[in-house]
Amino acid sequence: MHSFNELVKDFAARFDVAHFPTSPATLYEPGNYFLRLGGKRIRPVMCLMGNELFDEILPDAYELATAIELFHNFTLVHDDIMDAAPLRRGMETVHKKYGDSVALLCGDVMMIRAYDYLNKIHTQYLQRIMYLFNKTAREVCEGQQLDMDFEKRNDVQLEEYLHMISLKTSVLLAASLQMGSILGGASEGNCKHIYQFGLNLGIAFQIQDDYLDAFGDPEKFGKDVGGDIRQNKKTFLLLHALEVADAAQKVEIEKLMTENPADKVSKMLAIFKACNVDIWANALKEKYLQTALQHLEDIAVTSTRKAPLKELAAFLIQREH
Amino acid sequence: MHSFNELVKDFAARFDVAHFPTSPATLYEPGNYFLRLGGKRIRPVMCLMGNELFDEILPDAYELATAIELFHNFTLVHDDIMDAAPLRRGMETVHKKYGDSVALLCGDVMMIRAYDYLNKIHTQYLQRIMYLFNKTAREVCEGQQLDMDFEKRNDVQLEEYLHMISLKTSVLLAASLQMGSILGGASEGNCKHIYQFGLNLGIAFQIQDDYLDAFGDPEKFGKDVGGDIRQNKKTFLLLHALEVADAAQKVEIEKLMTENPADKVSKMLAIFKACNVDIWANALKEKYLQTALQHLEDIAVTSTRKAPLKELAAFLIQREH
Repeated sequence: MHSFNELVKDFAARFDVAHFPTSPATLYEPGNYFLRLGGKRIRPVMCLMGNELFDEILPDAYELATAIELFHNFTLVHDDIMDAAPLRRGMETVHKKYGDSVALLCGDVMMIRAYDYLNKIHTQYLQRIMYLFNKTAREVCEGQQLDMDFEKRNDVQLEEYLHMISLKTSVLLAASLQMGSILGGASEGNCKHIYQFGLNLGIAFQIQDDYLDAFGDPEKFGKDVGGDIRQNKKTFLLLHALEVADAAQKVEIEKLMTENPADKVSKMLAIFKACNVDIWANALKEKYLQTALQHLEDIAVTSTRKAPLKELAAFLIQREH
Repeated sequence: MHSFNELVKDFAARFDVAHFPTSPATLYEPGNYFLRLGGKRIRPVMCLMGNELFDEILPDAYELATAIELFHNFTLVHDDIMDAAPLRRGMETVHKKYGDSVALLCGDVMMIRAYDYLNKIHTQYLQRIMYLFNKTAREVCEGQQLDMDFEKRNDVQLEEYLHMISLKTSVLLAASLQMGSILGGASEGNCKHIYQFGLNLGIAFQIQDDYLDAFGDPEKFGKDVGGDIRQNKKTFLLLHALEVADAAQKVEIEKLMTENPADKVSKMLAIFKACNVDIWANALKEKYLQTALQHLEDIAVTSTRKAPLKELAAFLIQREH
């Protein structure tokens, strides 16, 4: 069995090759540029871990992991166009560096390349894996569309946000694990559990991300704490606050969001605390984490095989107690 | 055996269903809208014809044809964004009607849907067909990129244009025929010939398209004759004229292209005629058509089976003699 970190190193080394031909350079150099920006490679490694949960890591699992990482990067290139994002991993985004049309086409060809790697999988498993790959890819697009829709709405409910965030981020984590497991010969029942492990872990991670953006230690968090609040981002915290706040607090929240005073972050955090949003968020995160771990528990393999996934969960989710 | 027109009717009826779920409507309604705009459905029908050249039309051929048509429409939705085109088939383009971000995502999800249909093909042929499908998809992207690159260049050579136009339009026609043929159990040798038939026919068609835009009968052609000349589009005609024109004619061509006088079209046509560009274009078209027909001839099936493809070639390419 390999640890998450060992597999990250292993995959990163294998993935660090040219995935596109050299010509036409106007099309392919932007793709190579973007892939060289790196990234945590979490999804492909989850695919390898799903595979190793049931078997030795097969050569096909690396092809599949590469397909998953290329698909993920395709979504990033296109999301950056839609979000007009200037930077990604501290470097210029593709559309910023090469223009929108090149970025669009660069994303398209990166997705097609993902299917090239997918097509290398042994026929025995290809159709089952591609079915899940396609379903997940559609869901990720749905999540991105809902995210854009929600930006224009002021009445987004917590349940809707949860659905959107599941589609936008968690289903790909879940499917990465499951696709690797399918290659490992996992039964339908085990496949369902590994998928639910990934899905719930992903949601717990997103709740934590929203929490840390508001309440995190700036030194540990690395990101600009309070950024979500400043941008009026609909997060787990804000949506829950709007659900439980009393009339006066609601007025105050809406005032802060429209008037953007200098002390907006501290005042919003005070309301969040008064509404126990921090306690609620930690409890909700813990609930999803426990659900994830229960599904891992229910997978019918020895606990030794599950150890790396347990470590991954502990690594991704910091627990308060 | 079925004629081209019979198969167009057959395919159009089968394709006229909802290819996307209803929700989220903000993502899927634009896709359904675009597919309802119709189109000639040439590529999927070529897939069916390729299949029927070797066998009865199989259920899988309709799945494959649907994948091909969805892929083609995905390229149109994205091309319209890149070209900032307001209209397609006389109706608003997706990006014009719903915005660039929706059109981008709508194209993405249409391509993924194409792979859903592809994934329904029997395992026996899936990998071989998907290999060609992916290769062709990449080439179509390369063609679009080269087309955009060429717009910014003034030194495009005829050979380069031929390469670009092959990638942008002909490879998909050729691959559609070949993928259908593979499903029909065609040998490698026959596959090569049917591909070359489609590729050369596509190039002949494009030469004709360029020719008719300049020299066509406005009533028969339907499009705005002289449009390419007015827009300084690099066509077979212009690129050849620039190759064979004498110094004075070259100066005149460049003057017409920069100054855009009211009589630009008639003056450019006069130069084209003086350079025998029209005769050259017809001869070149005929050359590609003959090459196409020779490859059809070389396919090892009875001539009865080839009749519909011969008719298709005659239907697509109008001959002057």
